[in-house]
This record gives sequence, structure tokens and C-alpha cells, in this order.
Amino acid sequence: MHYGDALAARVAATSPVCVGLDPALDRLPDGVARDAAGVTLFCRGIVDAVHDIASCVKLQLAYFERLGWEGLRAFWDICDYAKERGLIVIADGKRNDIGPTCDAYADAYLHAGSAVDAMTVSPYLGSDGVLPFVQRCREHDKGIYILVKTSNESAGELQDLPAGDESVSEHVAQLVAGWGRDVIGASSGLSCVGAVVGASYPEEMRYLRSLLPQAPLLVPGYGAQGGTAQDIAPAFYAGGAGAIVNSSRAILFASAGRDWQLAARGAATAMRSALNEVIAAS
Amino acid sequence: MHYGDALAARVAATSPVCVGLDPALDRLPDGVARDAAGVTLFCRGIVDAVHDIASCVKLQLAYFERLGWEGLRAFWDICDYAKERGLIVIADGKRNDIGPTCDAYADAYLHAGSAVDAMTVSPYLGSDGVLPFVQRCREHDKGIYILVKTSNESAGELQDLPAGDESVSEHVAQLVAGWGRDVIGASSGLSCVGAVVGASYPEEMRYLRSLLPQAPLLVPGYGAQGGTAQDIAPAFYAGGAGAIVNSSRAILFASAGRDWQLAARGAATAMRSALNEVIAAS
Repeated sequence: MHYGDALAARVAATSPVCVGLDPALDRLPDGVARDAAGVTLFCRGIVDAVHDIASCVKLQLAYFERLGWEGLRAFWDICDYAKERGLIVIADGKRNDIGPTCDAYADAYLHAGSAVDAMTVSPYLGSDGVLPFVQRCREHDKGIYILVKTSNESAGELQDLPAGDESVSEHVAQLVAGWGRDVIGASSGLSCVGAVVGASYPEEMRYLRSLLPQAPLLVPGYGAQGGTAQDIAPAFYAGGAGAIVNSSRAILFASAGRDWQLAARGAATAMRSALNEVIAAS
Repeated sequence: MHYGDALAARVAATSPVCVGLDPALDRLPDGVARDAAGVTLFCRGIVDAVHDIASCVKLQLAYFERLGWEGLRAFWDICDYAKERGLIVIADGKRNDIGPTCDAYADAYLHAGSAVDAMTVSPYLGSDGVLPFVQRCREHDKGIYILVKTSNESAGELQDLPAGDESVSEHVAQLVAGWGRDVIGASSGLSCVGAVVGASYPEEMRYLRSLLPQAPLLVPGYGAQGGTAQDIAPAFYAGGAGAIVNSSRAILFASAGRDWQLAARGAATAMRSALNEVIAAS
């Protein structure tokens, strides 16, 4: 099934909650080993805790690469497990390269049968760094989310630069809309080419949404990074379609004690409620 | 030793040649297995062939990630081996993220004792996506190369956008100069914060060099991508200091037959001569 259609169906059946798996070793609960085995146990446990509440999990590759090859083995194990449990699996690696190297990144994560459904991509290299990913999306029903406007404080150093009548991030949004125009899901109307738009800037979110009418939005910055459900309202279409909202630390590390699974489930449930309230009101 | 000083000493002792290890499976020589074991054998063989000609090897992470966790294990094995043989080892991953995730990427590759001496970084996220890397450079004598102007055809879609009086890539160059200003090697005058500037645009290279007087430049696009030694002349300071020039396919795949090691050595030697000629004339 086309990625946009699969995403829309999954969000409708669960929620726009995306749980970010950022297993920082020094934040793991008491008693969990500070190694790849501990990370595997912990992330599988989080998957079990949220699998019927969240639509997606987003694995942050940095934390797995930090553990060397054993970390990458854990990454793939957790992807397989999350996929089995029905979650949409997003690899957050913000990859970017050109030509045959871009093909290699696309094949690494978006090959036929991969447990990864979608990945994040950084746009600095232009089309050459994006189109090989779009081709894999088309061939294997995968998705990508391209960084447009990130949630961090220094995002504006590049992204807000005035480039003619628009900012760099607005220009990137138009490029993203173009890259995704011919790969729209029949039932959802969503492209398999999405965009990352941070929760920190509600006005900008509204404008970028208008530039990207068919792109699924991946919205980071909720919770620990300061964004509220209200800030994210402009990202959604009727019924909560069109956007997934990521929270990592506030769910993963809701408790450092033995109740970490229950606490994570509680935090994900509260987030689902907060988002549903905003969606119902809009 | 400070990364800039170590780089300058190594280039002086060998050459500005950087051999890109981009082990595409379908280009491996006859008889080499199309798997992680074959890639390890092949890359170690290339290291043996060029270790006294090239200053650096640059491992392109995409080709290793393409092979799953076994690929990442091969990556680290080859880094260790290249380091043992005296080469400066660059991990080309164009990583970019923020906050604790950026710390995780920095720790993954630039930790104390890592066989990786330097890595590439993509600048779209601004300072938050760069300063954690700079901190590791300072603490552990490592280096980074930030994408400024890449060698691909579509580079200009973002990088040439007019941002006020300058282009986006020129603006990024100024940011890079600022990030690297306080981390200059005492003997070389080179910063540990370098820049990637493609060989495809000689005039732009001259101007970017002037904006980045203390940054080591990593110059891709030589050979297979069309850049000539003459195109790169503006990157160098007297004696060939200040820049390393990458070639991947033209060296790795100089022969698909049983003489692949000798052919790679021959191609690297020819590249060294071509660069030396340009350096002597400038």
C-alpha cells in the first residue's frame, strides 16, 4: 500500500502520536544494562507499551550508531519488532548524499521488505540528494520526511535566511511539494514525500502547511522541546490526518524506576488525549 | 596533536590525495565476495595500495550501512586498519542533528581513541547541529568538514539561493569560519573545523577560500565527477597545504581484474603527480 495511504489508515486507527526511540544510555531506567542488549530490551518494552496508542515509532539512528555495529544490529532488531506489532517505523537519520551514494542510503533503509517504512532526509544537496529516495518510495511503498523547518533554536541561521521573497525554509517547502507531486496516495491524498516542521513556530507552521498541502508532516519539538498541542493545530487536516507528532524523552523517560513501561504508556495516552482535543476543536 | 596540525604534517609527508572508500558491491573486482567480508578485504587492499601516497582515506558510510550491521562492523575494522597504516581517517556521513542527538553522533565517531579522525557534517540545522562536534574536536583532537558547496549538479537549488548580498553557501562559509575561529592548530594555522567545497566551480572555490582562510578544505568532485587538478588550484596554500582532494571511483575501480591493487596504486600516483604539478605552478 502507498505510504501516504498506509499512514492515514494507521493514524485513523490509533492516533497521530509518534514515539521517538532515542535511547540515551544515561537516561535508561534503573536495572537496564547500558549497552546494545539493554537498549534492545528497553526499546522493545516501549514498543509493547505504546503499540496500540501510537501510530509510529521513530528510531533516532545516532543513539544506535553510538553503540557501534552492535547498536546497528539492535536498531534492525527493534525495527523488525515494531513492524511486527503493527507500528509504522521511521528511521531518523537525516541522511543526505548524491548519485550512487544517495542510492546506497536509499537501498540501506528503503529496500523491498525493509522493516523501515520511512526515513528522514536533509535537503542541503538539492534534488540529487532526494530523487533516489523518492524512486525507492515509489517502487517499494516507502516514505521520506525532508527537513524543512526544524524545532531547534538555531534553525533560523540558515532556514530563515531571506532568499528573494521567501525564506530558505519556504523555498525548501516548495521544492518538497514539487518532489512529492506525482507520488500521491489514491485514498488519502497524501504524498509519500513528507516534511519535518517543528512545533516551535505555530505561524510558520500554518504557512508551511499551505505550501505543502499534500505532504504528511512529521512534527518534532512537542513536550520536552516546548511545543504544545495547540501549537500544532495548523498541521492537521480534519480528523487529525496529515501530521504525526513526535515525542521522545517525555514518553521514554517518564519514569526512571521499575514502572517505566506503565509510565511510558501513561505519557503516550496523555499525549493522544491532548492532540485529540485540539483536533476535535479545529 | 591538533587535527589541523596532524593533517598538515601528513599532507606534507605524502600528498593532498584523499582516497574515497565507496565500496559499491556491483563495482567490486572479479572474485571479491559481494558482502561485508568482501568489502573488508577490498578496502584493506586499497589501504595497502595507497597508504604511502595518500594522506587520507574517506569512508562513505552509506555503502557500509547498505550492508546492515555487518557493514558497520566492516566500517570500524577498516578504520582501525587504515589508522594503523598511518592514514588520516575521515567518516563521510554528512550527519546533522541537534541537542543530545547531535552529542550522540559526535560521540559515535569522535570519541577519545576512535580510529576516525574527522567526519563530515551537514549544516541545515545551524549551530545546534555543529557545536557539539566542535566540542569533541577540541577535547579529542578530531576534525569536521561542513558541507558548504557540493560538487553535484543540483547543489545550487539551495546553496546558490541569494540570501541578501551573498548566496546561502557563502553565508554558510562565514558561519563555518566563525565556528572554527577559536580552534586553530598552533603549528599549521589550520582550524579543526573544515569545509567541503566541490571541485566543479573554480571561481566559487577562490571566493570561498577567501571566506575560509583557516579552514582545511575537503574537495570532492575530482576525476569521475569532472573536476581537474587545475580547477582545484585556488584551494591550496603554498606547498599544497590547506586542502585535501578526494577521488573515489577512479582509484578504487581503476581495474575490475586481478590487478585492482596495482591499478589503484597507479591511479593514486597519477593523481598525486597531477596535483603536485598544479601546486608547484601556483
